[in-house]
Amino acid sequence: VSFSLTILGSSSALPTSQRFTSAHALTMHGHSYLIDCGEGSQIRLRQLGISLRRINHIFISHLHGDHYYGLYGLITSLNLLGRKNDLNIYAFPELYQLLNLDRDIFPHEKLDYNINIIPLNNESPQIIYENKNIEVLSIPLRHRIPCCGFVFAEKEKPRKMLKEAILKYNIPIACIKGIKDGNDYICNDGRLISNNLLIESAPPQKKYAYINDTLYTKSVIPYVKYANILYHEATFDEKMIARARQTCHSTAKQAAIIAKESEVEKLIIGHFSARYKELQPLLNEAREIFPETYLAEDGLNFNF
Amino acid sequence: VSFSLTILGSSSALPTSQRFTSAHALTMHGHSYLIDCGEGSQIRLRQLGISLRRINHIFISHLHGDHYYGLYGLITSLNLLGRKNDLNIYAFPELYQLLNLDRDIFPHEKLDYNINIIPLNNESPQIIYENKNIEVLSIPLRHRIPCCGFVFAEKEKPRKMLKEAILKYNIPIACIKGIKDGNDYICNDGRLISNNLLIESAPPQKKYAYINDTLYTKSVIPYVKYANILYHEATFDEKMIARARQTCHSTAKQAAIIAKESEVEKLIIGHFSARYKELQPLLNEAREIFPETYLAEDGLNFNF
Repeated sequence: VSFSLTILGSSSALPTSQRFTSAHALTMHGHSYLIDCGEGSQIRLRQLGISLRRINHIFISHLHGDHYYGLYGLITSLNLLGRKNDLNIYAFPELYQLLNLDRDIFPHEKLDYNINIIPLNNESPQIIYENKNIEVLSIPLRHRIPCCGFVFAEKEKPRKMLKEAILKYNIPIACIKGIKDGNDYICNDGRLISNNLLIESAPPQKKYAYINDTLYTKSVIPYVKYANILYHEATFDEKMIARARQTCHSTAKQAAIIAKESEVEKLIIGHFSARYKELQPLLNEAREIFPETYLAEDGLNFNF
Repeated sequence: VSFSLTILGSSSALPTSQRFTSAHALTMHGHSYLIDCGEGSQIRLRQLGISLRRINHIFISHLHGDHYYGLYGLITSLNLLGRKNDLNIYAFPELYQLLNLDRDIFPHEKLDYNINIIPLNNESPQIIYENKNIEVLSIPLRHRIPCCGFVFAEKEKPRKMLKEAILKYNIPIACIKGIKDGNDYICNDGRLISNNLLIESAPPQKKYAYINDTLYTKSVIPYVKYANILYHEATFDEKMIARARQTCHSTAKQAAIIAKESEVEKLIIGHFSARYKELQPLLNEAREIFPETYLAEDGLNFNF
């Protein structure tokens, strides 16, 4: 199974000529998820050959425009493309008004499909979506307005008996369930066979964490721990730390500290202030602490 | 004085990987005007090096999303850039609600400048804006919802006496005002001197006409007559004329007929349906009737 993350927009509030505002497309187990939807997200999806029709779930971290203004166009285009299936949007509930879904001022653009707004909660981490393969956790962040990060994690797979162990130790069927649940096995001759000799080692569960926008906060660490990829905003460099604090954003160094303490495989930094023409200094700053850091760039794709 | 038109978006309802939705930037006498504002207009402006700050007047033809969804991001960015001056938007009045300017659901993105919505009228042509150099006329079009075209025309300049004529015919100051208003002059010896021998010939007035979206209608001809550039939508080719009628759009051939009968200098066609991968057939179709036809393309610039 392949997992794929594509950066659709990597700028913060102001887009630049090269960088659109925040949006990521994540593909896990054949489903595509859109995370944030800045202006022009539908255009980036087209440019990168990602089908709009395959998106059924959109996760909006918070209601600053650079994270949701692309919904207007995307919602309209899905309608023009003949969508009939519900579209689920996980967001703070004011989005309903912001999209004007609460009033009938636009009868000529009536949607032929239904939009469900699934409200986020800024109080505590919550599982907001799950299917048989993955679950999505929302984590409260610390921004100027209510804001959540999202963790997409594969569910633990049922563990399988090793066939050769069944034969070798002559294990009766009645014991197999217990072994799958973690029991060791005691042979007729009294030998104890450790569970890990009887069971296939579990494939590691894939995990993607999206932390955008937030003041530096270690409260996210337990939730993003061991992620294959951690995306963490790095709006500023360490020289601008006062500005970062004032606007509830993070620096590249702070993102790297979170990555290191969370023992993730890879860190992607993004949501760059439009003031940075050159991002190498932010990358260097982060790599001093966490070498496996990469710069987000519109169109960049990461498989994991 | 140079006049410049830049195409920011040339697709119809659905953007493509190359074409954003409708938006034109027009510069006349040092002022920039934005005409329609499809999603991503602010990004195109940045990519083309046109200053966002110089835009004080935005003209929105109608309230289908592909003509105004870019306003959300542009309005927010102008605020982030520190705008204090009023922004004037000429549009059908429902835009006020669509932009959520009527309700206080978004206190964290309070604007530090004022937006004036100047309502369009779908009943009759009206001058909706003028300054000392130009005037802008709105013209009712025939679309599925109220929709206007816009004609940007230089005002007639005050005509000047030819100095050599004053000397040659010994014209008294008392007669000059009448001559400027168009009078001929009768010399003391009874000779009649025709007005055009006394007055500088007026420089031709520059004119740009924007006709987007509309069913084919000759009613626009008197207003777009003799334009330097006529932009006319050509969503479809002639083979799709039934679809054009059904959706209140025009074909490339119909756009060319309007251009020919209006005796314009140059026709630009645009607002192409996303179904056309190749636009040469639309261009050929129009050029058979009006050879001075050009295809709109994002980023293309026309001086006139």
